[in-house]
Amino acid sequence: MNNVTKIGLLGAGTIGGSVIEVLQNNRDIIAQRANTALEIKNILVLPRELDGLRQRGLPATDNYNDILNDPEIKIVVELMGGVKPAKEFILDAMAHGKHVVTANKDVVAQFGHDLFDAAEAHQIDFLFEAAVGGAIPIIMPLKRSLTANKITEVLGIVNGTTNYMLTKMAEDGADYDTVLKEAQAHGYAERNPEADVEGKDAARKIAILASIAFNSRVKFEDVSVEGITKITPEDIQYADNLGYVVKLLAVGRDTDLGVDVRVNPVFLSKDHPLASVSGVLNAIFVRGYPIEEAMFFGPGAGKPTASAVVSDIIEIARGLQRGAAGRFGCTCYHHRQICPVEETVSSYYIRLLVEDKPGVLGKIATTFGNVDVSLKSVVQTKANLDAHVEIVVITHAVKHKNILEAEAALKCLSVVDEIFNVIRVE
Amino acid sequence: MNNVTKIGLLGAGTIGGSVIEVLQNNRDIIAQRANTALEIKNILVLPRELDGLRQRGLPATDNYNDILNDPEIKIVVELMGGVKPAKEFILDAMAHGKHVVTANKDVVAQFGHDLFDAAEAHQIDFLFEAAVGGAIPIIMPLKRSLTANKITEVLGIVNGTTNYMLTKMAEDGADYDTVLKEAQAHGYAERNPEADVEGKDAARKIAILASIAFNSRVKFEDVSVEGITKITPEDIQYADNLGYVVKLLAVGRDTDLGVDVRVNPVFLSKDHPLASVSGVLNAIFVRGYPIEEAMFFGPGAGKPTASAVVSDIIEIARGLQRGAAGRFGCTCYHHRQICPVEETVSSYYIRLLVEDKPGVLGKIATTFGNVDVSLKSVVQTKANLDAHVEIVVITHAVKHKNILEAEAALKCLSVVDEIFNVIRVE
Repeated sequence: MNNVTKIGLLGAGTIGGSVIEVLQNNRDIIAQRANTALEIKNILVLPRELDGLRQRGLPATDNYNDILNDPEIKIVVELMGGVKPAKEFILDAMAHGKHVVTANKDVVAQFGHDLFDAAEAHQIDFLFEAAVGGAIPIIMPLKRSLTANKITEVLGIVNGTTNYMLTKMAEDGADYDTVLKEAQAHGYAERNPEADVEGKDAARKIAILASIAFNSRVKFEDVSVEGITKITPEDIQYADNLGYVVKLLAVGRDTDLGVDVRVNPVFLSKDHPLASVSGVLNAIFVRGYPIEEAMFFGPGAGKPTASAVVSDIIEIARGLQRGAAGRFGCTCYHHRQICPVEETVSSYYIRLLVEDKPGVLGKIATTFGNVDVSLKSVVQTKANLDAHVEIVVITHAVKHKNILEAEAALKCLSVVDEIFNVIRVE
Repeated sequence: MNNVTKIGLLGAGTIGGSVIEVLQNNRDIIAQRANTALEIKNILVLPRELDGLRQRGLPATDNYNDILNDPEIKIVVELMGGVKPAKEFILDAMAHGKHVVTANKDVVAQFGHDLFDAAEAHQIDFLFEAAVGGAIPIIMPLKRSLTANKITEVLGIVNGTTNYMLTKMAEDGADYDTVLKEAQAHGYAERNPEADVEGKDAARKIAILASIAFNSRVKFEDVSVEGITKITPEDIQYADNLGYVVKLLAVGRDTDLGVDVRVNPVFLSKDHPLASVSGVLNAIFVRGYPIEEAMFFGPGAGKPTASAVVSDIIEIARGLQRGAAGRFGCTCYHHRQICPVEETVSSYYIRLLVEDKPGVLGKIATTFGNVDVSLKSVVQTKANLDAHVEIVVITHAVKHKNILEAEAALKCLSVVDEIFNVIRVE
């Protein structure tokens, strides 16, 4: 081993900085495993960042052409995030015959198809292990280690921010606003937390996971999304009493009506392997035949993500030596329908405030029955100050449209004051 | 896709039968993912098994030469288990230019070096995902997805039999002999359970995992092994009270004195990701830089193992189409020392029976102090009938040799009646 494989880095933020450190700190073992030294030849950053990098003895440019037109650079590593200009930059790199590694879930979830087509056309490798689950190996295991399986379900806790918040709410009994501020103070949530708390980040990730698991393109727009903003300490307490934890779950499921793909808070049984995944950690759970079940667990964001990025670089560097590039093509062989969310099936938890008088429970139960929602339990929980009580209903498995009908019907009942929350039970 | 890749199977037991089923049931998705149909051309079985297979319309032979000399067979899948004749059969297949997939931990743990050499010499692929962790993807993730990392620790619950037994002991408070009989009744333990309960099966698996994680050959003989036969319901109860679960843990750890590699029962903190792995399920936990931590979880044995075997076959079939065979070579670049077990460091739990009289606790504590074992807690637990009490000691982290000295010294104390158990705390 005495050759060198040269890399161009796009972006030097948290993950980019960690990639630079790892290539430095683990230089020897990486060279042995890659059978080539890996060298960062150039780093594309904003003009104001140039000096900082150069002072650290690192190469830097603010002109992408310096990387595109450098024939020594064989691998471009895109760590800018977002769609613009990342998508164009990736396509430009491919057009210049450079292999691409990215950690960018947005661009893969939204434009995966175009990117794979371009990679195929230029016969280059396009790897994105870091785009889902951060450091957790899940893309390569799905594409290479689980290929024998008919996968029926992929479930993920793939957003560390919301998992941290829900964990803190459960541990401290704190409310949503309090834990959001805490998460922001720790740097786990951004100042504008929308992408995380409204489930959009998780939706991009499950779009990618479902595409691979079911060999059919699932786009971000296909994912039905609901965030955690309505979750209260009361819901979490009821969940605990009933044997569940509340998690923001990304769901991809193979059904007769197509792929059920969504992100929503759920009551998850404490027995489920995902239930013990707490704090900022992520995990992806897979069910299929013949494997039955498997779970992949680890850090979902931040500096450890460099593990996935650099391992992808090593994988490409190894392939280059064998002339085996272009090995990792698109695996979407089918075109599966997306199951309309109204047709998806779950049990549900419904918490509502009703008048505390005789016959109310009966009215509630009858209302559910009228729209074909069969109930597992109806429990009156605590009396309110002014002659009202809370009722917690758990349904059997029903279609989502029936639950929507039940909600509409309940709202028309004079004894029902408020429907606090409707949460799926997994 | 209209080509066919033909396979020879050695053995048609539990895993072999499942491989046959999976290749049949998942035929279409496998063909798409492999970009070739996979066909079992011949199955080597014992003479008495020939009729059974043929009646099911399956090809079968009791003469290995029928497979070796069949130029159409490109991949030999060894599922016989054991060292003889599996090792020779694998080498024969390689010598005939056939790629090899095996689920055989014995042969890989003991003769991995020879097998990799032969694979390299004949430029064929040798894959063994199923040899550790059954269906769980761990070998390929370690060899391909975690290559950026300096791995410092690999911990595994890699024996389903003992994990089932320990789980049942914890749940039911039953004793060792009772749960062993239960495990045997369920088919989870063999009539002669020695390989499982004495930790030898787990030792073979950690030898393989440590070899890959630390890029240095670790053989079965290098592993210090202790089984679960001395674990009592009392130990499990104390563990629970102190915030631990008892697990048979396979440990590979990078230390200044070499690789600390062993299998032993441990008190594992309930907070550890491996603590919630119960029943016959397996999991492998990895610590390193930059990934920090990752865990891989799933079924460790039985029919799901076909997931790993068939995925390995698909991986080879894909490579064959690109002429990229021989890609998966040995990754043991170094020769690391094995850390002598006496030099390994842990906290310890020690449970002993002593005379119930003034000054005993002091004598015990002094004895530990004399051999440089510092104590975290000494608790007198329950009085015995005849003026004896149980003492539970938890030490700080100390070298194993000091614990051996402490044991020897305690045995010389007249107030010490019996040392029930000494268990590492992780």
